[in-house]
Amino acid sequence: MTSEPADPEILDNDVMETLDEDNNLTRDFVDRVLDAVESGDHDEVRRLVEPLHEADIADLLEQTPSDQRGVLAVAMGDLMSADVLAEVNDYVREDIIDALQPAQVADLAGQLDTDDAVAIIEDMEIEDQQAVLAELDPEDRAVIEDALSYPEESAGRIMQRELVAVPEHMTVGQLIDYLRDHQDLTTEFWEVFVVDPQHKPVGTCKLSWIMRSQRKVPVSEVMKREQTLIPVDMDQEEVALRFQKYALISAAVVDQSGRLVGVITADDIVHIIQEEADEDILRLSGAGEGDINEPIADSYKARVRWLIANLGTAMVASFIIAQFGAAIETMVALAVLMPIVASIGGNAGTQTLAVTVRALATNQLTQSNTVRSIWREIRVALLIGATIAVIAGLGAGFIFSNWLLAGVIAAAILCNIALAGLSGVAIPVLLDRLDQDPAVSSSIFVTMITDSMGFLIFLGLAVFSGLAG
Amino acid sequence: MTSEPADPEILDNDVMETLDEDNNLTRDFVDRVLDAVESGDHDEVRRLVEPLHEADIADLLEQTPSDQRGVLAVAMGDLMSADVLAEVNDYVREDIIDALQPAQVADLAGQLDTDDAVAIIEDMEIEDQQAVLAELDPEDRAVIEDALSYPEESAGRIMQRELVAVPEHMTVGQLIDYLRDHQDLTTEFWEVFVVDPQHKPVGTCKLSWIMRSQRKVPVSEVMKREQTLIPVDMDQEEVALRFQKYALISAAVVDQSGRLVGVITADDIVHIIQEEADEDILRLSGAGEGDINEPIADSYKARVRWLIANLGTAMVASFIIAQFGAAIETMVALAVLMPIVASIGGNAGTQTLAVTVRALATNQLTQSNTVRSIWREIRVALLIGATIAVIAGLGAGFIFSNWLLAGVIAAAILCNIALAGLSGVAIPVLLDRLDQDPAVSSSIFVTMITDSMGFLIFLGLAVFSGLAG
Repeated sequence: MTSEPADPEILDNDVMETLDEDNNLTRDFVDRVLDAVESGDHDEVRRLVEPLHEADIADLLEQTPSDQRGVLAVAMGDLMSADVLAEVNDYVREDIIDALQPAQVADLAGQLDTDDAVAIIEDMEIEDQQAVLAELDPEDRAVIEDALSYPEESAGRIMQRELVAVPEHMTVGQLIDYLRDHQDLTTEFWEVFVVDPQHKPVGTCKLSWIMRSQRKVPVSEVMKREQTLIPVDMDQEEVALRFQKYALISAAVVDQSGRLVGVITADDIVHIIQEEADEDILRLSGAGEGDINEPIADSYKARVRWLIANLGTAMVASFIIAQFGAAIETMVALAVLMPIVASIGGNAGTQTLAVTVRALATNQLTQSNTVRSIWREIRVALLIGATIAVIAGLGAGFIFSNWLLAGVIAAAILCNIALAGLSGVAIPVLLDRLDQDPAVSSSIFVTMITDSMGFLIFLGLAVFSGLAG
Repeated sequence: MTSEPADPEILDNDVMETLDEDNNLTRDFVDRVLDAVESGDHDEVRRLVEPLHEADIADLLEQTPSDQRGVLAVAMGDLMSADVLAEVNDYVREDIIDALQPAQVADLAGQLDTDDAVAIIEDMEIEDQQAVLAELDPEDRAVIEDALSYPEESAGRIMQRELVAVPEHMTVGQLIDYLRDHQDLTTEFWEVFVVDPQHKPVGTCKLSWIMRSQRKVPVSEVMKREQTLIPVDMDQEEVALRFQKYALISAAVVDQSGRLVGVITADDIVHIIQEEADEDILRLSGAGEGDINEPIADSYKARVRWLIANLGTAMVASFIIAQFGAAIETMVALAVLMPIVASIGGNAGTQTLAVTVRALATNQLTQSNTVRSIWREIRVALLIGATIAVIAGLGAGFIFSNWLLAGVIAAAILCNIALAGLSGVAIPVLLDRLDQDPAVSSSIFVTMITDSMGFLIFLGLAVFSGLAG
C-alpha cells in the first residue's frame, strides 16, 4: 500500500512482483537480481534496481550472500546512493565499503547528514577510516572528526549538526524570510531552536506553532521555554528513554558549557530503541550481537564463550549430583525425576528475569519500588510453586506409587521455584546497582542457582527423609 | 539536564531533589508524597506534585502501590491531567479510572487527541466504557466509537484524526494564511497532506519545505508525491516497521477506498517498538504480559500455564531417562553427567532462537534468505559443538579416568548442539510460515527437543558403546 516503487510504467513492463504483501522483496525478484549479478549483466541489474526505494535497495543488499554484495554494489553504479549506504546493517555495509574506493565512500558520506555519515565511518577499520577522511572536503572532515571524538553510542555520535537556531528578538516574519533567503540551510527540520548570544538554547518552537502565528509576533512568544536538553555525552539508551518519556519528535543537544551543538530526531530513536531491546534479548540468551548477517567467526566467539560459562555451571550441578551417588544407586527414580526439578526452576527463573531486565531497561523499576517488586515476585513465585508442586507431586505419587517420593519432589519444586523468583529479580537489580548490564550475566547466575539448588534440595530431601540411601 | 521541573523558585524553596541523575523520581520524593497521601494532606500532595512534568507525574503514579493510586489521583485534583492519564501504563490507569467519576474520565478524554483518548477508553471494562462514552460530547463520542470499530493494535486505533489536509491548487501563501485564520485546527503537526477532491492523499509537504518556499509557489510543487500510506487496518507492528524502514516522522492513514482518515506520528511508534520488542522477550521466556505493575493473579495465570507445558516436556525427558534405569544403576556417573548434555543443548538452542525470532520480527529473515540462514546456523552450531565437546570430553575423561565415557559425552554434546542449532532456527521459521507468533511457543518445542534428545543420545550411546548396561 505504499507508493514505492513509485513508477507505474516500470511495474507494467515487468509483471514480476517486487514486493510481497509484507512489503518485503519477493524471492523471485532477489533471485533475478542475483542471476544478473552472476552473469555480469550490469545493465539488467540497474534496470531491476532502478524503481526501488532506497530502503528496499538496502534490503536487497542485506539479502544478498556476503561474497556477492560488493559486486552488486559496484554493478548498481550511482543507484548505490548515500542513503542506501546509510540504511544497511553494519555487517552488510562493511562488505560494500570493502568493494568501493575510499574516494567513492567519501563522496557518499559527504552527501549525508552528519549523524548518518558518522554511522558509516565509525565502524570502519582505522586505516580505511583515515583513507576516507582524507578524501572528504575539509569542512565535512572537521565535523565528522569532532563527532568521532565523542564516545560510541553517545548523543554526540547520533546527533546531526544541521539545524536552525535563531536569536530571541526575531519575529515570526523575520524567521520565515530568513529561511526563504538562506537556501544553504538544512531542508529537513521539525523545530527551530531559539538561542541566546552565547548560543545556549532558551526555547524551542515547533514549526506548526510558527506557521500558525502572525508575522509580527516575536519567536520568544511562540517558543516553549520548557525543553528537554540532551547532554552531548549522554548514552543513546538514556536519550531514547527521554524521547519516549516526553514524547519528543526532536531535541536539542548541548555541550558541557550548555551551548547548542546538534539535534537528534525521533526517526533515529526508533532505530535505537529497536537495537537496545534486541541487545537485551540477545544478551539474556547469550547470543552476543546476534545478527543474521554477522560473520560466522563472530557468532562462534560470542556464543561459545557463553556456553563455556554454562558448562562450568553445569559441572557445579554435576558435582552436587555426584555427592548423592549412593542414593541414586539405591533408587534410580531419583535420577529419572531430578531433571524436572532443575528444568522447572530454570524456566521460572527466566520468566522473572525477563520481566525484571525489561523493567530496569525502561526505568520502570527504580529505587522507590525495588522492595515492593521483589516482594511481588516472591508472592507470584510461591503461588506458581505451590501449583506446580501439587501437579508434579500427584503425578510422581501415582506413577511410582510412592507418596514419600511425591512429597519430596513437591517440596523440592516449591523451594526451587521460590528461589528462582527471588534470584530472578534480586540478581539483575543487584547487577544494575553495581552499574553492570543486568542482561549480560544475570541468566548465568540464575541458572546456576536453580540447577544446583534444584538437585541439592531434591536429592538432599530424599536422603534426609530416609527415602533413599 | 532537562529543564523540567522548570520553576527554579520552587526548587529553591524545597531543597529535596526531585529527580536523580537517571532522570527518575528519587525515593525520598516518592516517600514524601506517599506520606502526604496517607495523612490525607491534599494541599501538601498538590504542592509537591505541582512542579513536575506530566511524564514525571505518570511515573509517580506508577511507583505508588496499587491500593493508594486512586487516593493519590483524587488528591492531585486538576494536576491529574489528561496528559498524565495518557502517559501511565495500562494497569496503573485502571486503578486511577476506578477512582474517578465517568464524567471526570470523559472530561479528561475529551481534551486529548483521538489516539490518546482511544488508548484510555479501549482498555476499560465494557460498562465503564459505555458510561464514559455517554458523558462525552457527541462529536468526540462519534470519533472514538469509530476508532474502537477498528481491530485492536491496528493503525485505526493508534492514529489521530487531528490533521491538516489542503487541496492541490493552494499556494504556500494561501496555506499559511489558512493556518493562521483557522485557530480551531490542531496545533501540533509535522506535515501537511495534499488531497484530491475525493480526499485521497496525492502528496505530503514537510513543514520545513513549506517554510522555505516563497508565498506564490503552489503546494503541489513543494510536496513529494512518493509517500508511505498506511491502511487503517494494518497491524501496529507492521506500521512500526514501515516507519523504521522509511525513517518517517509522520504518515497518512487511509481507509479501504484510499481516503485520508488520520495520521500516525513517530512519538507513538517509539512506544510501539518498545512494546513489541518487550513482547518478544517476555513471550520467549513465557512471562506473558510481564509488566511489574500487572496484578499478581494475571502474572500467575500467564506464567503457570507456561510452566505446566514445561512440566509436560520435562516428563517426556524423564520418561526417556527411565528407559535407561538399568544403565544408570550399573554406572551412576551417567546420572551425574546427563544434565550437562541437556543444559548445554538447551542454552545453545535458546541462543539460535533469540537471533531467529528477532530477525523474523524485524523482517531481516525473509523467504529469500531462509535456506542460507538455516545453513549458517548449522555451521555455527557445528563449530560450537566441536569446541564444547572437546572441553567436556577432556574434563570427563580426566575426572572419571574413563575415555570411553569421555567419547560418549563428547559425541552426545556435539549432536545435541547441532540439533539445537537446527531446531532453534527451523522451528520459529516454520511457525512464522504457519502465521503463528514464533516468540510464543518456539522455546517450548526447542527445549523439549534438546532435553529429550540430549538424554536419549547420551544414554543411548552409553548403552550402544557397551559403556554401561
